[in-house]
Amino acid sequence: MATHKLLLLPGDGIGPEVMGEVKRLIDWLNSAGIASFETDTGLVGGSAYDAHKVSISEGDMAKALAADAIIFGAVGGPKWDAVPYEVRPEAGLLRLRKDLALFANLRPAVCYPALAEASSLKREAVEGLDIMIVRELTGGVYFGEPKTITDLGNGQKRAIDTQVYDTYEIERIGRVAFELARKRKNKVTSMEKRNVMKSGVLWNEVMTAVHKREYPDVTLEHQLADSGGMMLVKWPKQFDVIVTDNLFGDMLSDIAAMLTGSLGMLPSASLGEVDVKTKKRKALYEPVHGSAPDIAGKGLANPIAMISSFGMALRYSFDMGDLADKVDAAIAAVLASGLRTADIKSEGTTAASTTQMGEAILKEL
Amino acid sequence: MATHKLLLLPGDGIGPEVMGEVKRLIDWLNSAGIASFETDTGLVGGSAYDAHKVSISEGDMAKALAADAIIFGAVGGPKWDAVPYEVRPEAGLLRLRKDLALFANLRPAVCYPALAEASSLKREAVEGLDIMIVRELTGGVYFGEPKTITDLGNGQKRAIDTQVYDTYEIERIGRVAFELARKRKNKVTSMEKRNVMKSGVLWNEVMTAVHKREYPDVTLEHQLADSGGMMLVKWPKQFDVIVTDNLFGDMLSDIAAMLTGSLGMLPSASLGEVDVKTKKRKALYEPVHGSAPDIAGKGLANPIAMISSFGMALRYSFDMGDLADKVDAAIAAVLASGLRTADIKSEGTTAASTTQMGEAILKEL
Ligand SMILES: CC(C)[C@H](C(=O)O)[C@@H](O)C(=O)O
Ligand SMILES: CC(C)[C@H](C(=O)O)[C@@H](O)C(=O)O
Repeated sequence: MATHKLLLLPGDGIGPEVMGEVKRLIDWLNSAGIASFETDTGLVGGSAYDAHKVSISEGDMAKALAADAIIFGAVGGPKWDAVPYEVRPEAGLLRLRKDLALFANLRPAVCYPALAEASSLKREAVEGLDIMIVRELTGGVYFGEPKTITDLGNGQKRAIDTQVYDTYEIERIGRVAFELARKRKNKVTSMEKRNVMKSGVLWNEVMTAVHKREYPDVTLEHQLADSGGMMLVKWPKQFDVIVTDNLFGDMLSDIAAMLTGSLGMLPSASLGEVDVKTKKRKALYEPVHGSAPDIAGKGLANPIAMISSFGMALRYSFDMGDLADKVDAAIAAVLASGLRTADIKSEGTTAASTTQMGEAILKEL
Repeated sequence: MATHKLLLLPGDGIGPEVMGEVKRLIDWLNSAGIASFETDTGLVGGSAYDAHKVSISEGDMAKALAADAIIFGAVGGPKWDAVPYEVRPEAGLLRLRKDLALFANLRPAVCYPALAEASSLKREAVEGLDIMIVRELTGGVYFGEPKTITDLGNGQKRAIDTQVYDTYEIERIGRVAFELARKRKNKVTSMEKRNVMKSGVLWNEVMTAVHKREYPDVTLEHQLADSGGMMLVKWPKQFDVIVTDNLFGDMLSDIAAMLTGSLGMLPSASLGEVDVKTKKRKALYEPVHGSAPDIAGKGLANPIAMISSFGMALRYSFDMGDLADKVDAAIAAVLASGLRTADIKSEGTTAASTTQMGEAILKEL
């Protein structure tokens, strides 16, 4: 059995707590002889700043580059609101994405039947919802230069951010979306603002070309990002795979996540390109939710998104789709049994702490 | 009685139909001696392109600059998908915003009680909703330079858009938001992505400073635009006034509009600075909905957003707040009577065409 190297980066807030439940799962997989993982741990975000005055140390970056997959918790919190921009907690995550070239961010928005009631949307609008948002993650306004604040004198400053996209960046994220669609409902909706942004014009043009050339069997639709956002709220089930740029993807995937009523349940995968020689790809797995500093350390956090992110690692990094299915099934079973962490607690269900939830899922496995 | 000069720009799709109902209202106000409006009409968007191969002619731009207010329908449609970027329908609207310096876009998101059921959100989440989104409209990525597509050779192109904000642009939109909040629930939520964008850092800094210096009596909160979007979907009633940049405002105001279930009902105002000498400000009023080419010319369009936009003109350009209140009350009364255009039709209500709805509102007045 091949041994896989995992780097665990719990980060800040509830990150360490939910990571603890993944660690429990990994230990069991190892001891039960189901898989063989070698784990190392590092600091990222505010916790790295507190220790080293950086958002991630060079040592941990080296570990990240050497790992087969990174399991990431969450970063940030008011404690670090005033630290310099370059070393703010988020910078650690952004550097990981950029230096590992994790250009493809997969964010499934799934509504667990047991939780449809938790959505602010009507049950019929979200029940059975299963969409996949494919967000470009290493380009656009997140990384484009210039990115500056200049003092103009007279009390005036000028801030500049730059949205940049090259053809190849749009092509490769398009391919990820089309490939996923083929294994799902065979439909891709591309979202941009071509009526206002040149990057939207190019995005639209390249998606159309890739589709025509390589994926004519998949249905491709184009939508302006603003009306796409509206359609998400109005009738999300019309979508299968949505592909969009870094910033629109940030907004739209968060909104889609919130629609499901299951924010504490949703995983994500950030993938690099497959190496032609090793056939491996760099990858980072993280829950969609943030660091939730207000509930950190209280045993209230929902570990499901984190465990489910580890499930995505099994599927996308280690070709253990069957095991990933079992993890998903265990989560569904525990929910069906009525166990709930505070964020998803409703009448008639049983309260569980972070640990109790993690243990229940493990037991189910 | 002062005579006010209005320029009507119906635009494309359902624009002309819904504008017809505003024209009916204006004619009546004139003939009943309640107000005195002089109206002129121009072409914008696809209809201007069809006539003059531009998205707005110089002649109509001159009229726009001379008018006391512009009443704008909607632009765009698949018919013009292939026209050159510079003369696409939206360019006409963007030029009006920029050349008239209409930096403040006010987008109320109100849930009409009679229509709460039409929302995809649960009734309790939207009933009584009344928020005001204040969107910066002449800056940011919409207008920043460079904005280009360059051929890099080898089949590669590079698209660039530039997000630029200066201190004064953030200050003046902040003031609009704080002033509005004082007449409402006294709370402003500023949204940006300061964890990723330098413009977000400056936006946050300037809002904080304006608040401290000029509006300490108003509550100011900051939210990241992505989690702000989530909060909008989760519990929109937590907001009073939201102030945000051009692109985030585009997305967030559309999403907020959709939450209300009343997209066909929502107006907007785009305002320039008050001239110190004349005490006047340039202004453009337009419905939030688009040109809906699929239903154009069928008498199906809902004229309420357009009429309500004219109501905002009465309030913000002509100091006729009482008359604006009456227009709002007439709309509410007609809805309460059960009359509905197709977009908001539900069981037990009476179907109305665009014209029937316009006439009913007028009769109520
Ligand atoms: C933490 C932050 C930098 C990040 C982003 O904006 O990408 C987060 O919101 C996300 O969506 O992963
Ligand atoms: C038509 C388009 C250019 C416009 C925008 O993006 O601003 C529209 O979506 C709006 O919100 O008014």
